[in-house]
Amino acid sequence: MTPPKKRPAPGKPVGNEAKALYQAMIGAAGPEATGWTGPLQATAKTGEPEEVLILGGGVAGLTAALELSRLGYACTVLEAQNRVGGRNRTARKDDELYELDEKTGRPVLTHKCAFDDKLYLNLGPGRIPYHHRRVLKYCRDFKVALEPYVMETTANLVRPPHTTKPWPNRRVANDVRGHLAARIAQELVEKDAFTGELLDLLRVFGALDEGHKYRGSTRSGYLGSPVVEDWPTPAPPLPFEDLVNSGYWKARFYQPVDYLWQATMFQPVGGMDKIVDALAREAKKAGAKIKLGAVVTGIEIDPDGVGGVRVSYRQNEKDHHTTPVYCVSNIPIPVLKGIKRSGFSKEFEAALKVVEFEKTCKVGWQANRRFWEGDLDQAGDSEGIYGGISWTGHNITQLWYPSNDFFSDKGTLTGAYNFAKAADDLGRMTPKKRLELARKGAVELHPEFEDRKLVPDDKGVTIAWHKVPFQLGGWADWKPAEPSHLRAYKQLLQPEGLDECFYVTGDQVSPLPGWQEGAMMSAHYVAQQIYGIMPLSVPEVVAVPDSVALTQGLY
Amino acid sequence: MTPPKKRPAPGKPVGNEAKALYQAMIGAAGPEATGWTGPLQATAKTGEPEEVLILGGGVAGLTAALELSRLGYACTVLEAQNRVGGRNRTARKDDELYELDEKTGRPVLTHKCAFDDKLYLNLGPGRIPYHHRRVLKYCRDFKVALEPYVMETTANLVRPPHTTKPWPNRRVANDVRGHLAARIAQELVEKDAFTGELLDLLRVFGALDEGHKYRGSTRSGYLGSPVVEDWPTPAPPLPFEDLVNSGYWKARFYQPVDYLWQATMFQPVGGMDKIVDALAREAKKAGAKIKLGAVVTGIEIDPDGVGGVRVSYRQNEKDHHTTPVYCVSNIPIPVLKGIKRSGFSKEFEAALKVVEFEKTCKVGWQANRRFWEGDLDQAGDSEGIYGGISWTGHNITQLWYPSNDFFSDKGTLTGAYNFAKAADDLGRMTPKKRLELARKGAVELHPEFEDRKLVPDDKGVTIAWHKVPFQLGGWADWKPAEPSHLRAYKQLLQPEGLDECFYVTGDQVSPLPGWQEGAMMSAHYVAQQIYGIMPLSVPEVVAVPDSVALTQGLY
Repeated sequence: MTPPKKRPAPGKPVGNEAKALYQAMIGAAGPEATGWTGPLQATAKTGEPEEVLILGGGVAGLTAALELSRLGYACTVLEAQNRVGGRNRTARKDDELYELDEKTGRPVLTHKCAFDDKLYLNLGPGRIPYHHRRVLKYCRDFKVALEPYVMETTANLVRPPHTTKPWPNRRVANDVRGHLAARIAQELVEKDAFTGELLDLLRVFGALDEGHKYRGSTRSGYLGSPVVEDWPTPAPPLPFEDLVNSGYWKARFYQPVDYLWQATMFQPVGGMDKIVDALAREAKKAGAKIKLGAVVTGIEIDPDGVGGVRVSYRQNEKDHHTTPVYCVSNIPIPVLKGIKRSGFSKEFEAALKVVEFEKTCKVGWQANRRFWEGDLDQAGDSEGIYGGISWTGHNITQLWYPSNDFFSDKGTLTGAYNFAKAADDLGRMTPKKRLELARKGAVELHPEFEDRKLVPDDKGVTIAWHKVPFQLGGWADWKPAEPSHLRAYKQLLQPEGLDECFYVTGDQVSPLPGWQEGAMMSAHYVAQQIYGIMPLSVPEVVAVPDSVALTQGLY
Repeated sequence: MTPPKKRPAPGKPVGNEAKALYQAMIGAAGPEATGWTGPLQATAKTGEPEEVLILGGGVAGLTAALELSRLGYACTVLEAQNRVGGRNRTARKDDELYELDEKTGRPVLTHKCAFDDKLYLNLGPGRIPYHHRRVLKYCRDFKVALEPYVMETTANLVRPPHTTKPWPNRRVANDVRGHLAARIAQELVEKDAFTGELLDLLRVFGALDEGHKYRGSTRSGYLGSPVVEDWPTPAPPLPFEDLVNSGYWKARFYQPVDYLWQATMFQPVGGMDKIVDALAREAKKAGAKIKLGAVVTGIEIDPDGVGGVRVSYRQNEKDHHTTPVYCVSNIPIPVLKGIKRSGFSKEFEAALKVVEFEKTCKVGWQANRRFWEGDLDQAGDSEGIYGGISWTGHNITQLWYPSNDFFSDKGTLTGAYNFAKAADDLGRMTPKKRLELARKGAVELHPEFEDRKLVPDDKGVTIAWHKVPFQLGGWADWKPAEPSHLRAYKQLLQPEGLDECFYVTGDQVSPLPGWQEGAMMSAHYVAQQIYGIMPLSVPEVVAVPDSVALTQGLY
């Protein structure tokens, strides 16, 4: 084999300069000097470009290809599938869904998406928080049009684990606020610890009456549709005991309160894969090559004892071998584990074993009428659900309503999005049985799902990400409170090989697993390690993560 | 004068039919038989159409013209101004703003809107709740494109009355939740009244730790921008004492929790007056005539002792008199009070005196860069405000960020929207001084407002609705808890005149004052009174209004 090229360091900053750039990169200063934004292209290296081989064309792989190409490296992406994007996938008519057969372990075509033309549904990431600045920046720079993603409307429903019928979000959310505020107010009054300001806060927080009791509020909606002759009256409050006994909060009811799901969220107009299209287009413009259907079959670190890396892959029924200067692996860790490897450090091999990937399934429906938005030709109890999510104790866990094309005729819904055991159970079923189960869960929220003409069976789609070839899971289930996890995480941030030639990237090695922002953060990080402005070893972790969020599995 | 035409009752339902229609109208059944939706056009009256004169082309006046025209009446709208829409007004380049001179009482041109082309700002209503079904139905039927109006993002700010610097919404909202939940948990534990389920609810509600203490949460945001090497840590919680002492809730911080402002809200793409354009267009299509610049100068009920109504108005410097079969007044009550009237009942005259109209001002800014959205080319502390409202104890009360054209270059903001004394004070100033004051209030939230190139003085607009000719206020300040108000309200729902020929319409005689839904409800009500399917006298009010909402001035 060709000996690995010597690692040059053209344009590499040193000393204070490197420090300044590092400061910039971690947000202590503007990133215009950090190596991955436009202005740094001025210092892109000259001379013969070094080869970077990127394994996997997910969001991180494409981002790394784009940014390293801009920095003057010669990038090639090997993508095993016939499309780039990885879990960023939007289902449209005729799209084929493959999963691994449980017996043979081989990919089989399970079904095709049969949505009507122009309808689509995001099977992977579906929303962008306002603080995911890298994603937003790429969308703006590459003219990916964004529209608001509605995470929650008070017209959404919750069907708690211990009740048999759903409640509107507005009643649960606001009656609980009221009951809790009244409880504190009562305590204050009983203790004679009356503080006017706090009582006033509680009154407004919980919509208490003048006596600091909670007797219901129009926040929970009106008792009936308003009429001219009368003033709206509140729906009667749900009894606190019923709310507590229902276990409604165990159905993820408060997820929209968490930072990652707070308004204002966005989604690309036309489907999340508009981001993939843009990244691939721009990476190619910057010089990167993308090879589809190229399945990595082996990775050898230091194959000949003098550093370097050799990658074997199979494409068009032929075996290929290549020895780039750098190799960046965007291959999901569960997949990487199954690829023949040699020469990796013991620490690296141990780290691969620590983290598990989350099991997760989605179901998608086409509805031929947007019944959840309500019938504007009928007065009275229209649903009025425009976007957001209904939560349920049923296996489907949640039901997403479309945030796009409000008031149009047809629409697509996410009919299940579940995790862990619920996803394992659902994923073991055939697609047909998954849809049957998902329909039952949806009927509990909306009886209209009984109508198979309105929501046709043959237009349903489903995916079990943990069974998808070349993916094998939703995201890395890091438990940063566990020392072994933190150790493994840090290990994976460090390059392998005598001459630091092999890097792992993806949201899987970011503090935002499952988020495109994490994928991009990681790609920037690796690009800067290669470019030489990011340390190759990781400083001690000093921050104490949010234990509540950890408990709730929010990372 | 011509004697009034005898009131015919073509197609008027009787007995059970009327009852059924009434049931339908109040929402107990579908409205397809209630007289104002499409299907009822089948029973539109035949023969020579009766004349209906509509005074005022606001949303209610236009809606009444549309629906009565569809029902076969010959409608004419007299509009005093040179545009229809009333308070539904969207400011664009070159629009002229008139207010009454305090000394002379005459309208004077105070300034022109100088926004750049394509920029606009709603000076009146700015949002549509998801449960305002009439507005949504007209928008859908008349192809008025809607987009989400973002009422709140957790990136918004609040500058409480007793603090000097603003806090992000997410910190205030979530730290208060945490502190309150911890307080109840502590009480439970102290009392040894441990109930596992309630404690678990509190833990999730308030993001408490395993010991049921609140130590902060990432719900309040991260301490710093996330980096690859570390897990996000929460911003430290604002001390509860500081939150209570700040009086933040008095700055309307919890308004987005109330039903009228809950997600999902909408706004028409391109400006709220797209609704006015559509209503006027469709009313004309249905046969209605609209006369602009026609100022009503007198209304005589039963002018000759044999019933009927005579309306005098001035148009093109000529006086006109007309005697329609029906007259529907969409004139704001404060304006109607100043019009020469005769023949009205004592009860009606007394009712006019009861209700006051709210004083309210708005200020609008053009910003040449959307600095509040943050700079995507800079890492770190970008604002990331996409829509929503920041609240302040300053006179401006609130600052609205645009929910349209996110990520574009320029944008318009509502730089003040205030009420009562704050509006009275602001309204007494010259437009120039209003803008000066509004700039100070905005600087307290965003120092960028200091930059007069970024936010130019000469592109600011302002309106004091209580000083606008033919408007004289924001909305009827009904106090339904006061018997005199309820009596007056009911009186205004009943027609005047021997032969029930004069009707009042508008959001001013609806339980949703200040909302377009209220205007449309009222127009439908009056149309049905005239058509004969709605009682002319009002049933006793039985509902008890939401006292909390009343206290907070939410009606």
